[in-house]
Amino acid sequence: MSVAVTSADGTHIPLVEAELLRWVGSGDSLLEGACLDALFPPGKLLRPVLCMESAKAVGGTVDQVLAFAAGIECLHVASLVHDDIVDQDPVRRGRASTAEQYGLAEALIAGDGLSMAGMAAMLSDGPAERVLQAARVTVDALRHMCRGIMRETEIRGDLTCGVPTVLNIMRDKTAALTGVACQAGAILAGATHEQHQALRRYGEQLGMAFQIRDDLLPYTAEDQVTGKTATSDVANLQPTLPVLLAYDAADEADRNLLTTVFRGGTDPVTAHRDILAVLTRTDALNKAARMASSCAEQARAELTGLPDSTRLAELATSAADRQR
Amino acid sequence: MSVAVTSADGTHIPLVEAELLRWVGSGDSLLEGACLDALFPPGKLLRPVLCMESAKAVGGTVDQVLAFAAGIECLHVASLVHDDIVDQDPVRRGRASTAEQYGLAEALIAGDGLSMAGMAAMLSDGPAERVLQAARVTVDALRHMCRGIMRETEIRGDLTCGVPTVLNIMRDKTAALTGVACQAGAILAGATHEQHQALRRYGEQLGMAFQIRDDLLPYTAEDQVTGKTATSDVANLQPTLPVLLAYDAADEADRNLLTTVFRGGTDPVTAHRDILAVLTRTDALNKAARMASSCAEQARAELTGLPDSTRLAELATSAADRQR
Repeated sequence: MSVAVTSADGTHIPLVEAELLRWVGSGDSLLEGACLDALFPPGKLLRPVLCMESAKAVGGTVDQVLAFAAGIECLHVASLVHDDIVDQDPVRRGRASTAEQYGLAEALIAGDGLSMAGMAAMLSDGPAERVLQAARVTVDALRHMCRGIMRETEIRGDLTCGVPTVLNIMRDKTAALTGVACQAGAILAGATHEQHQALRRYGEQLGMAFQIRDDLLPYTAEDQVTGKTATSDVANLQPTLPVLLAYDAADEADRNLLTTVFRGGTDPVTAHRDILAVLTRTDALNKAARMASSCAEQARAELTGLPDSTRLAELATSAADRQR
Repeated sequence: MSVAVTSADGTHIPLVEAELLRWVGSGDSLLEGACLDALFPPGKLLRPVLCMESAKAVGGTVDQVLAFAAGIECLHVASLVHDDIVDQDPVRRGRASTAEQYGLAEALIAGDGLSMAGMAAMLSDGPAERVLQAARVTVDALRHMCRGIMRETEIRGDLTCGVPTVLNIMRDKTAALTGVACQAGAILAGATHEQHQALRRYGEQLGMAFQIRDDLLPYTAEDQVTGKTATSDVANLQPTLPVLLAYDAADEADRNLLTTVFRGGTDPVTAHRDILAVLTRTDALNKAARMASSCAEQARAELTGLPDSTRLAELATSAADRQR
């Protein structure tokens, strides 16, 4: 592969976008069109950025990992497309979700197509032993992701499932993939075992910080900022971390209020308002924010000893502070 | 890996079943339970058998390809689970489909989980260069499969799409994977380029024979024999090869009859009866059966020069003759 390793504005985002296009195609078929629509305009491209920055942190180059990084993004977006079917979510990144726009069956197939485009990209380039090792850890993380998504459907409406359960689901559903995005980037760049294990733990803690913040967004940001409906989790009766922290700390009246909402039937706007009131009274929003900061701190601690990890440290900090 | 290379009854089926269990798990979670339910009792295990027999045909052993073969079966079954969502098909292999039994969202996640279990199995074992080459051709075939499945949704109700279109869809949806099942088995067993290319073409022709027969089954077999509803394609207004062959050969009255049925609204039982009548009058069933035989013959011709391909030749013959 012969691509420039940095782009004009000093970030690698345009390189990733070009690489995504290379793997998903030009959009002349319904399948390619639906895949492109799900990928573009892209989101934060957090996972490919983590992959590339991890390669650089161990002395490697972006072009050693570019295809793999784009592959991880395809697999991530594939999971979002399927997630929006599972959650019956009509909005993603401020636009109609793939299922809403193309239909359920078409979105299902597009997710599968994106997933396989991602696998093809991941397997395409680099020394065989490294590619295989990086692909194995990534596929293992994707299996964890499926487990987390399935567990999430099982705890719907269950306020008694407990904080450790939702933390485990976050680990499976989000942190496993951000962890291997970092680990795979390091492996492909020729990192030592200790280096790629540290970067994996860094990525997992960053992923936890990111997801804890994500669950706070419906209560701290406006719809138009996050690009998703603030009431989606509530409409699905999905108990998230702040809600479970609140439930643990609530008095009987507030517990009853939450229980009523999570029994279903309350209209989403009222439900959202009632939950927000309990979250505020129990200080659950601040508790969750502190947990995110603590994960970010643990992530940064894993970077000790890596030659060039300034950007990774910044990414961990911003994951815990993000407002979108 | 240390497994016996043949089982007591001389087939490798029990080995594949054990290997599937090893990769999908014990069933203690909802995800594993749904995956196991989709895999067991297994179908014909055609793809893993093709993979193992292809390895043997070039002088290799079953244990060189067993994990890969099980992986291909997981990926195939994952596609069936998703296909039954796309087609809203309540029956698979004579039992409730995964979507019917577990719910749509759960079946979607189970399909994704099976798909990643399959990738993990495929990448797990063997010399890195061979594993990577085998995985690349397989992933490429799976991308073709997604393309074929999407194209299939696009031609619903369209009797004018033409025989070449449905043959292309068959190539993408079925023959690509049976082709690489053979090619990957050969690659993993250390075949020459010419050998694994020939086996790929063999597997593709066998897949075409198999799928042409599959499309005939609703008109030649009873529900209880095939384990699927005879009226599924009709209910989805899916024009299949025999229907398009009939449409090409039909007089005006029969074309009008088919057109009426494919406009939708006819009850499935009447529709099925009307189509069968036209298929019989136009000799389309026999034409399609001859096409299947011709593909099987081309498949067998690819086996010339391979040291041990008797079983593969038999498999090609039975693909074109199958009644279930």
